[in-house]
Amino acid sequence: MAVGDEIRFDDPENQCFGCSQHNPRGLELTFRHVAPSEVETRYVSDADLCGAPGIIHGGVQAAILDEAVGFAVHAHRSHQRGDDPRADRRRIVTLEFSLRYRRPAPAEVPLLVRGRVANEEPPDFHAEAEILDLDENVLTSATARWRLLDDDAPHSGQ
Amino acid sequence: MAVGDEIRFDDPENQCFGCSQHNPRGLELTFRHVAPSEVETRYVSDADLCGAPGIIHGGVQAAILDEAVGFAVHAHRSHQRGDDPRADRRRIVTLEFSLRYRRPAPAEVPLLVRGRVANEEPPDFHAEAEILDLDENVLTSATARWRLLDDDAPHSGQ
Repeated sequence: MAVGDEIRFDDPENQCFGCSQHNPRGLELTFRHVAPSEVETRYVSDADLCGAPGIIHGGVQAAILDEAVGFAVHAHRSHQRGDDPRADRRRIVTLEFSLRYRRPAPAEVPLLVRGRVANEEPPDFHAEAEILDLDENVLTSATARWRLLDDDAPHSGQ
Repeated sequence: MAVGDEIRFDDPENQCFGCSQHNPRGLELTFRHVAPSEVETRYVSDADLCGAPGIIHGGVQAAILDEAVGFAVHAHRSHQRGDDPRADRRRIVTLEFSLRYRRPAPAEVPLLVRGRVANEEPPDFHAEAEILDLDENVLTSATARWRLLDDDAPHSGQ
């Protein structure tokens, strides 16, 4: 696994609403590992994921951005370890997540989604993500704090 | 429409991922108007809305909380006007949204969802929302800033 590769969690047991390739209700997101701590994808939202007509629901935008951050954390850790992001058996969870809706994000139109780890403060990661149009205008931006859990920690966060 | 009533946006033309009663992919949320500026519902998330197995995806939680805030703004304005929340033709949009994930929010278990308008700073509303278990432990909490748009404003936000 190297910078440039696609990250796709295609295990049939993975039923995650955001990244499963086998959950018909889900977003089926995959990302490309574009820099050591950064991922990007081009995404077209279905029409049935809207809030106001034609505009992706704010919560669905949050799901897309949450996935961008999660993939970025996996990519970042994979780059550090030098192996496949899917080999990461440590659990990571969102603790805090802040979004700013700047312009409407349209459904049924290709958009860019980017996520990156800005810095580490173990066991936490500070990350940023954006949804952009193809002219690189930021439509929605987010910051997040994620935590790497101990292997034997009780599950916390989502 | 009075405090105590259920708010349900059941117009077949409403296809909103959060509150439509006619979008099979959506959350089909309704709320009860429990205080002048507050709404509440009991909600059971489907299994195919998870992130980690058994835990509601953080983005879906954001969608649920975003709806709680939206319904609270409609309830608050309805109470001020003295009519039905569905009669509100002014558009409201999320500008900022911050979430804190405190404990895992399980799917397939009844949970409480609450939203309330904390204060108005026209044209903005500051609001709060939570997902709680039935023992009233807060699982996820959120704060949001929403804006009431001018009738003739170009659409902004989602």
